[in-house]
Parts: sequence; C-alpha cells; structure tokens
Amino acid sequence: MLKIGIVGVGTVGQSVCQILEDNKDIITARAGVELNVVSGIVNNLSKKRDINPNIKISNNVDDILNDDSIDIVVELMGGVEDAFEVVKKALQKGKAVVTANKALLAYHRYELQEIAGDTAFEFEAAVAGGIPIITALKDGLGANHIKSIKGIMNGTTNYMLDKMINEGVAYDVILKEAQDLGYAEADPTFDVGGFDAAHKLLILASIAYGIDAKPEDILIEGIQNITPADVDFAAEFGYVLKLLGIAKTNGNSVELRVHSVLVPQNQMIAKVDGVMNAVSVVGDKVGETLYYGAGAGGDATASAVIANIIDIARKGKGSPMLGFKKPLESGMKLASINDINTKYYLRLEVNDIAGVLAKVATILGNKNISIKNMVQKPLDDNKSNLLLSTHTCNEKDIKDAMDSLEKDNIVLSKPVMIRIEE
Amino acid sequence: MLKIGIVGVGTVGQSVCQILEDNKDIITARAGVELNVVSGIVNNLSKKRDINPNIKISNNVDDILNDDSIDIVVELMGGVEDAFEVVKKALQKGKAVVTANKALLAYHRYELQEIAGDTAFEFEAAVAGGIPIITALKDGLGANHIKSIKGIMNGTTNYMLDKMINEGVAYDVILKEAQDLGYAEADPTFDVGGFDAAHKLLILASIAYGIDAKPEDILIEGIQNITPADVDFAAEFGYVLKLLGIAKTNGNSVELRVHSVLVPQNQMIAKVDGVMNAVSVVGDKVGETLYYGAGAGGDATASAVIANIIDIARKGKGSPMLGFKKPLESGMKLASINDINTKYYLRLEVNDIAGVLAKVATILGNKNISIKNMVQKPLDDNKSNLLLSTHTCNEKDIKDAMDSLEKDNIVLSKPVMIRIEE
Repeated sequence: MLKIGIVGVGTVGQSVCQILEDNKDIITARAGVELNVVSGIVNNLSKKRDINPNIKISNNVDDILNDDSIDIVVELMGGVEDAFEVVKKALQKGKAVVTANKALLAYHRYELQEIAGDTAFEFEAAVAGGIPIITALKDGLGANHIKSIKGIMNGTTNYMLDKMINEGVAYDVILKEAQDLGYAEADPTFDVGGFDAAHKLLILASIAYGIDAKPEDILIEGIQNITPADVDFAAEFGYVLKLLGIAKTNGNSVELRVHSVLVPQNQMIAKVDGVMNAVSVVGDKVGETLYYGAGAGGDATASAVIANIIDIARKGKGSPMLGFKKPLESGMKLASINDINTKYYLRLEVNDIAGVLAKVATILGNKNISIKNMVQKPLDDNKSNLLLSTHTCNEKDIKDAMDSLEKDNIVLSKPVMIRIEE
Repeated sequence: MLKIGIVGVGTVGQSVCQILEDNKDIITARAGVELNVVSGIVNNLSKKRDINPNIKISNNVDDILNDDSIDIVVELMGGVEDAFEVVKKALQKGKAVVTANKALLAYHRYELQEIAGDTAFEFEAAVAGGIPIITALKDGLGANHIKSIKGIMNGTTNYMLDKMINEGVAYDVILKEAQDLGYAEADPTFDVGGFDAAHKLLILASIAYGIDAKPEDILIEGIQNITPADVDFAAEFGYVLKLLGIAKTNGNSVELRVHSVLVPQNQMIAKVDGVMNAVSVVGDKVGETLYYGAGAGGDATASAVIANIIDIARKGKGSPMLGFKKPLESGMKLASINDINTKYYLRLEVNDIAGVLAKVATILGNKNISIKNMVQKPLDDNKSNLLLSTHTCNEKDIKDAMDSLEKDNIVLSKPVMIRIEE
C-alpha cells in the first residue's frame, strides 16, 4: 500500500479522494498496490468537505511533511512561493511529489528538477487538465525534434471566443456570462490576459526544448481587444479566432508566445469548441499529432493527478522530470519577439475621406507589408473600420507601421493586430 | 550504450535506423544513453537498403537472438506465428522487445505478457502508428473506467471514405486509386474488410478492460457495401461515414466491433480527413479525450518504435505490458453481437408499387423498430432506394426484420444496414 497526503483539499483534492475510492478496483489492478489518501491539509478546518472521514485533516503542512509513513505528497494548494517551499521540503524528505500547479512550474521547474534528483516528481495535471499531454510529449514523441506546439490551453477563453463566434455575443457580455457560470474569476485577467496559457506553454516548451524561460520573458497577449468585427472578418475569409499558446522553432531559436490567432477553419484545432482544450504537436518525424479533452474541472484534473500516482506506484522514478535525463546540449535559445515572421490581421478605425486608404497602403508598403484581403465596414459618423489581412511579414515591421499610422493620425484609435497561423 | 537488433529491415526498419542517426542528439539526451542499431535481419540479402554500413546484415535471426551483447530486439518482420517464435525466444533470453506487429498481438498478447514477465515488451507502434495512444491508455487514463473507445484506426479506408464523401467517387474507382497510390494492397481485404482495425481494437480493449478476445470472436465488417446513395443520405441528415473500431461497456459486458458507421458531423472524430487516424476514449472521470495523428508510414511508425526504445533505456521494464500489473478481477465479458442496441441506417431496394412502404413499415414495426428519417430515391425501371434511419433498437431485431424483408420478397436485393454512433 502507498500512503498519500494531499496539501490543499479543494475541488481537485476532493475529486482525487473520491476517484481513488470509486475506482479502487481498476486503479489497484493497474498500480499493483493499493493507493490510500491518509492525510489532507486545509486552510479552514471548519469548512465541510465531502471526503472519507478516515482521512486525517489538519491545517499544519508539517503533519504530512514530518509523517515518515507518507510516500507521496500531492500539492494542490496553488500559488508559487509557499507551494515551492512545501514541494521542496517533501522532495528533500524523499517523498514523491505530484502537483497540478502550473504557476509553481512556470517559475521553479528547473530548480525543482534539481532538488528532485532521483525522487519522482510528476505534473500531468498542470497542463490541459485531463489530457495526457505531458506523457505524450515526454514519452510518446521522444524520437522527434519538436517543430511546433500550438495549444488551446485555456478553456475559459475558448468558451468565450466560441460564444462570440457562434452567437455574435460581445466580449463584455460573454465575460459576465462566463463569470456567472463560474468559468471565469471575478478578476478574469489571469485567463483572458493569456497568463494561464503562458504558464502551460512554458512547461511544454521545457519538455520539448529544454528551454528555461519565465512568463516575463515571452509575448503574452489576451483576448480583451476582440470585437464582433474581427470575428466577422475571420469567418468571411475562412478563419476562426482562438487564443493559442505557440512554440515554434527556427534553427536553434524557439518562439514562445500566447496571443489570439486567426486559424483556418479546416484545421483540427479550429474545431475545438467550448471549454475543451487541445494541443497540436508537430514532430519532425511523426508529423502532426493532436490531443483533445477537458482542460479543467475537478474530476478531469484528478484523473491526471491519479495517473501520475499510478505511474509512481508502478515505476518509482519514471521518465526524467522534464523529459531529458541529460541537459539538452543543442542550446535552444528564446527568439526575440521582433523576429517573428507571420501573417497578420489588422483592424484600423479611419475617417471616410479621400486619400486615407492610400496613406495606409503607403505606410504598409514602406515596411514591405503586402495586403492579402481587405474589407471596409462603415461605422457611425463617416468613420469606417478597415479590416485587412497581410501576406507573411515581420513583427517589428508591423509594429513600426502601426506606430506610424497612430503618429500620423491616420487611425482614429489604436490599431488592433491579430496574428494568423496557417 | 544500448545495442539494438532489428528483425525485418523494411520501410519501418530503415526509418528506425535513419531517425536514430538523424536525431541522435535529442534522443540521447532524452534516453540518457546512446541507442545503436548493430544488427539487422532480412530475407533477401542482395536487396539494397539505405542504412548505415556499420549495421551487420544477415538472413539468420539467430545472429541477433544468440548475440548476448544485444539488449533490445525490434520485431518488424510481420506475420503471426514466425514472429511469435522470434519474440518468444528474445524474451526468454532476457532481451527487451519492441514490436509494431498488430497481428502478433491480436493473437498472442496474453501469452507474450506471461512470457515477458519482468522483461520489457512494448508495442506503441502497433496501434495508430505515430499516435502515442498505448501510452495514453496505459498510463495517462489509468484512473478511469473506460466507458468507450471509438477509433479511426485504418488510414486506407478513411482515405477512401473521404474521397467518396467529398468527391462523390464510387467505391471501385477509389479502391483502384488507393491501390495505385500504394495506400491499399493488391488484395485489399485486410484493410477494407476491417481486419486491420480489428487487430488494433483488440489491443486497445486489452489495455482498457483486460479482455482476451481474438479477431474471430468479434463483429468485423468492412466498407465494401457503401455506395454514393449512402454517402448522400448521411450528408443530408448531418452525418459522415467512417469505419470505426468500437469498444463500449454496459455493466460488465464489453461490445467489441468494427464496422462502418454514420457519425454526426459535429463530432471531432467526424473531422478526421484522409489517411489520418484518431482515437476517442471516454473515461468515467476524465470524459472524452481524443488522439489524432498519422496512423501509418515509415517515419511515423518508427517514431513510436523509438519512443518505446527510449522508455526502455530510461526505465527498463516500465508499465505492465497490457496495463494491469495484477489481472483485472472485475471480469469483463465480451458482449454478444445480438445484444447491441443502437440506431441504424437501412438501404432497401424496392419496386415503386403501392403498398410496399406499408409492408416495410409493418415488418419494422413488428420488431419494435421505429423510423426516424426516410428518403425515397428513384432508380431505373420503376425501382427505388428506400433510405431510412431508425431510433435506437436491437441488433437481433434489425437482422430479423431484414431477413423478413428478403424472405417476403419486399426488397429486390440484400438490404444494407449501417450502424449510427451518436
């Protein structure tokens, strides 16, 4: 029998306890041993929890850390620095650790890999909830240089975009609805600003490339600027809007970025609806593989946590924590944001007067930006939205052109730019 | 360094050799040791092969089996009984084995699990080529009772159906084209008859349910009867035609079947085009997850073979071969084909005379089969196709009704029945 202590017995923690009881038969058959939660740590001892009364509940994490009979610590407390201290101490005491904490890993994964050494440290639930994408990337695609990763890794924003696309609902309205449904927090910035997806992207990028970037090192943009006009333009030209986490190599340099994107409607990832997640991975040998499923929710996340526990029961230390037993020597470097070359969609608010289009075209042309499709949509008061997509061009050139459009007062408000991924 | 011997150096074997050289940097970093192919066994010594001349080629499998320096045997010879002998001897000598041979596993997987004991025996490439579905099912979804598996596991038939759907091509024409392109064999029965998919389904069903069925125990139907009329009916009512391998539980009983299916257009699996494969797995806790990628081809298959080799290098014996360390005690039983309850699509060729429809409706009604949608399409000579879909009913009832339609000469040719999966 393996004994488990859970630090943070909230929604996911309670699901872990429940599933280990509900599916005890098959889990024991797969793990080869019984897996029992014996202790849980909570902040609020008086809060009612739906778990087996045999589980000892305390508000002192040392009750798990100092209990030598506990083999596996499951960290579900969230946050960064406090969780880091708990996980560090557990590993130093030789306890295996399973976590669902993406923020912890976004900041401390390489230190934790070092601290863990030969002790098992697993985190399948930290990216895309119940989808076994960590296992796929660490184990299943190990023969490949990973050319790209593109993921819908935040269900809240995918739900919101989906509603905007399929029901024409405006951003503010759908944000309120998502909050009422419990999909979005009172302060939604972490989701809609792209930070949640960024944490997950950084974890995947470590496994694919052995690259040690932090959230503040990479491009992170959210979906806050998207309007029905953008959604309509996308549909008209065969695209859908998605918030993607993207990792992409170019020689030894890796682009890492999170932002909204126009994706061709016929791509598998364009077909991922509602709160579902999906990650598309292109390997140099296997080609594209894609992994789809529930990215959040107590049971789906707990499914991934328990998969890690079963793995530890079967194998002890399994794969290296971040996929590489030796540090990767090829020296992948983070690409500069300005070096991105892609296609862009632009929304420019302009006056309906003669010569404006010529000025826009001139400024874009001077930066070697060529227009692919353009639509002019009238607004009130002799104003229009100029909606256009470009052929492939350079990020710095686009930004310079948009600065010029603003400086020369050709646009009436800040231009909106969304990248196109084909 | 780990030394590898390959039995059968064809397309996949050559890809394995090539990828281990091309991606040596990243594979070594992930495996923690160098992986070197030292020997290959072939039938025809004079055939030119595009592999490193340092690899010792022979036509005697004992040159690998009796070479104590070889750690891992990769079996890519195909076939059932000869391959079984080779793999058995390799395992008995304590060599780890990796195979891509689905037929071998469809017939001998439980004997091989017994023979392997604590020796690693891996087979990721045997199902859905480069998609790491074995790893997902064995490791990633271990916390779940698997409620269903539905997979497009044969690229040839998916390519053919895709062409029939999108280009209106008839079965015979597209079969010829698939043969010319090398997607289908001169004798296409193994693919178009559903046997290839059945082998793969049996392997997945073992991991999900610990069930020991053989191909001859389960329902296997192909795509040979499908006509443009069926494709049109499907499109008219929001379905696409797919050949699926299906495993589905009902209490302790497991349905295992391979046949063509009408799938709602909005399901992810309906969107899998061309030669691609995808497997949708529903777990009781995680919900639906789906895995998509290339199901065949030298490099994609080799990617999965090498993933197994890396795993063995990292962990020795990893997960139990078929996912269960202990035999599964819940005693899942194979369901009888006659117990299937689902919706059906029927194509009936009838004379255009008064009263025929009433007779059809009466025979169906007598078996508690109620009609959901019906279309009558004129054929030549006062004949019509009656195309209809039913509400949920029982397989035996449908078969009995079709027998009656034939016996009473209400239909002019054998009725065609295709199941609907919603």
